[in-house]
Amino acid sequence: MMDDKLLIQEKLSQATEILEELDIDVWLTFVRETQLQPDPALELILGADMTWHSAFLVSRTGQHIAIIGQFDAEHVRSVEAYAEIVPYDEGIGVHLRAALDRLAPNKIAVNYSESDVAADGLTHGMYLTLRKYLAGTPHADKLISAEQIIRAVRGRKSATEIQRVRQAIATTEELFDEVELFVQPGMSQRQIADFVQGRIDALGLGYAWPKAHNPIVTCGPHSAVGHAAPGDVILEKGHTLHLDLGVKENSYCSDIQRMWYVLKDGETAAPADVQHAFDVVYGAIKAGESYLRPGALGWQVDEAARDFIVDNGFPEYKHAFGHLLGRSAHDGATVLGPRWERYLGVCELAVEPGNIFTLELHVLVPDRGMMSLEEDVLVTEDGIVYLSTPQRALRYIR
Amino acid sequence: MMDDKLLIQEKLSQATEILEELDIDVWLTFVRETQLQPDPALELILGADMTWHSAFLVSRTGQHIAIIGQFDAEHVRSVEAYAEIVPYDEGIGVHLRAALDRLAPNKIAVNYSESDVAADGLTHGMYLTLRKYLAGTPHADKLISAEQIIRAVRGRKSATEIQRVRQAIATTEELFDEVELFVQPGMSQRQIADFVQGRIDALGLGYAWPKAHNPIVTCGPHSAVGHAAPGDVILEKGHTLHLDLGVKENSYCSDIQRMWYVLKDGETAAPADVQHAFDVVYGAIKAGESYLRPGALGWQVDEAARDFIVDNGFPEYKHAFGHLLGRSAHDGATVLGPRWERYLGVCELAVEPGNIFTLELHVLVPDRGMMSLEEDVLVTEDGIVYLSTPQRALRYIR
Repeated sequence: MMDDKLLIQEKLSQATEILEELDIDVWLTFVRETQLQPDPALELILGADMTWHSAFLVSRTGQHIAIIGQFDAEHVRSVEAYAEIVPYDEGIGVHLRAALDRLAPNKIAVNYSESDVAADGLTHGMYLTLRKYLAGTPHADKLISAEQIIRAVRGRKSATEIQRVRQAIATTEELFDEVELFVQPGMSQRQIADFVQGRIDALGLGYAWPKAHNPIVTCGPHSAVGHAAPGDVILEKGHTLHLDLGVKENSYCSDIQRMWYVLKDGETAAPADVQHAFDVVYGAIKAGESYLRPGALGWQVDEAARDFIVDNGFPEYKHAFGHLLGRSAHDGATVLGPRWERYLGVCELAVEPGNIFTLELHVLVPDRGMMSLEEDVLVTEDGIVYLSTPQRALRYIR
Repeated sequence: MMDDKLLIQEKLSQATEILEELDIDVWLTFVRETQLQPDPALELILGADMTWHSAFLVSRTGQHIAIIGQFDAEHVRSVEAYAEIVPYDEGIGVHLRAALDRLAPNKIAVNYSESDVAADGLTHGMYLTLRKYLAGTPHADKLISAEQIIRAVRGRKSATEIQRVRQAIATTEELFDEVELFVQPGMSQRQIADFVQGRIDALGLGYAWPKAHNPIVTCGPHSAVGHAAPGDVILEKGHTLHLDLGVKENSYCSDIQRMWYVLKDGETAAPADVQHAFDVVYGAIKAGESYLRPGALGWQVDEAARDFIVDNGFPEYKHAFGHLLGRSAHDGATVLGPRWERYLGVCELAVEPGNIFTLELHVLVPDRGMMSLEEDVLVTEDGIVYLSTPQRALRYIR
């Protein structure tokens, strides 16, 4: 749709600015058969699948060059984002070298990254192929990681992108309201998930993560914790109900967790242990939120939330406090996570204006179940704004 | 579904046999956030998405070990294919080294390949991470490409897989029959594509390649050639109609092209130029087919078809004669293609029993349009069998 073309043009302009900021002449995205082996950067700068070896060059001087198989040429033209399109028949090597000769770049940033999966679309085989194509040219030794470019291009959301995430969130909140009317004690996880998925499918929406475990439905203390498919555990009175749901609407995602307590006969509010757990989880999100602003490092935000949980006598959560959200549910670096081995490189990055983060954590309430919240927030020049309507109080199933 | 579990167990057993055949002790699939950055090998041996750094080890002695983030553990258990599951909290490195120490492999095959995209799921960043994890251990220098393993595991279709492709093909042929009843001169490419997609969606099927250009609809001589989205070109009398359609049913694909001629008022058959083009394309497919058997090299099969076209006075087609078909429309190496730069490494591979190939090529008929056929065939121990019902004669729109 027209909107998508504008989005790609917007992102390509942004990329040129970022190249200038980082003193890098050329960013090269090098892919093939992207339906089988996608590069997450390609959806930002093209939004189409390519078949043969394909090279997309963005220069700091604003040139956009696509070198692609002839059968894909029409497809690239239709995106209207590449002023120079070079279709080839037999091989890309000679055309790629010629384009680089003309650009004579100081550095060529390519899509690999140890820390950021969203900047790591170049496969090792394609890296070897690229080295081979450039062997003996002045370009061979100029390859560097494009992770800083991609982090900025993906992480700094444009106005159009923010609007799309807002819409996905609004839809998700409506679905939570529908779930609340539908759910009754005695239903299974599967029944609840089926209801939600039926609505998502009927609305023609996509899933922010695979349908097999979206939504995650946790009924009381006997449900598996984590990325598990909804099973046969029955929702009982006196237990908590937890949903983790993300839709994909117009290519952008939501990712929200909500909590209910199932009132027992005669109860009018949650018992003290459940209410206390909610208060601690809510408080921890607020504690983390208060550290979230441009320039904060990911681990600092996580630490504020984590300390709050531990100070309140609960064990710390075994995951990150937050991740970026956008085209994907886990939308690349930066992570609001602890300085553990698997977050190294992404939890020390600084928060930037335009980043959209989830804020999420949980505790377990013995004999009651999971207590877990997740909000979606936008970082602005001087703080944050909530994109989700934060859950400030427990919700009830009667 | 249960069938999927059997399929994965089937593929893992096959992998163990292939490791023995190739004298390789261990095959390691190393991935993270596979929803954003999938490894095509993972769908063969797991069929689920993983979040944190995850390692899947298959040994020639039949051991299957999954080292995965704790939140993904339940998910991996539910596949019932990995006897040993090692969930971790903070980092995978120590667990991966321990597993390799126990296996003490002669070689460790990992998923990179210059020639075969389906065997190239290891990103360059993940390759660097793996090298870092193994630095200083005896395993560091044992990494080799898993391309031979993956080519065999993906390429040698099991009975279950063949049955699924057959079903996708049968469905596609029914759709072609429906199209023929629907289409009339005066309709646009877009109208025809909308009809087909409406049926695919109503049947709850998937697309073998992106919906944006599936089916490809070529109406007469004024349509764009290649992977283009259906446009506003109108189907006229005296022109050809060409459809290239692939559905995905139960995770397996079809990929078939069919030809119609739109009769002019008073005509009862296609004019000579159109009929001749059909005969040459059909003949070229038969010529290629006659070379397709176990042990034939990809380029030899292509050459037979290509020579037939050229000998009959048409320009050679600028693509390969055939590709593998299975879980994907382009299902990895081997390619029945010419020895051009971009097919090097995959067009010299030998055809194996269990391979399913497309056979496809086209010519253009001046003022009439595209003439292009595509069949799907299975290679057996001693020859081939057609999975599609070959188009032996032009079909007509009246």
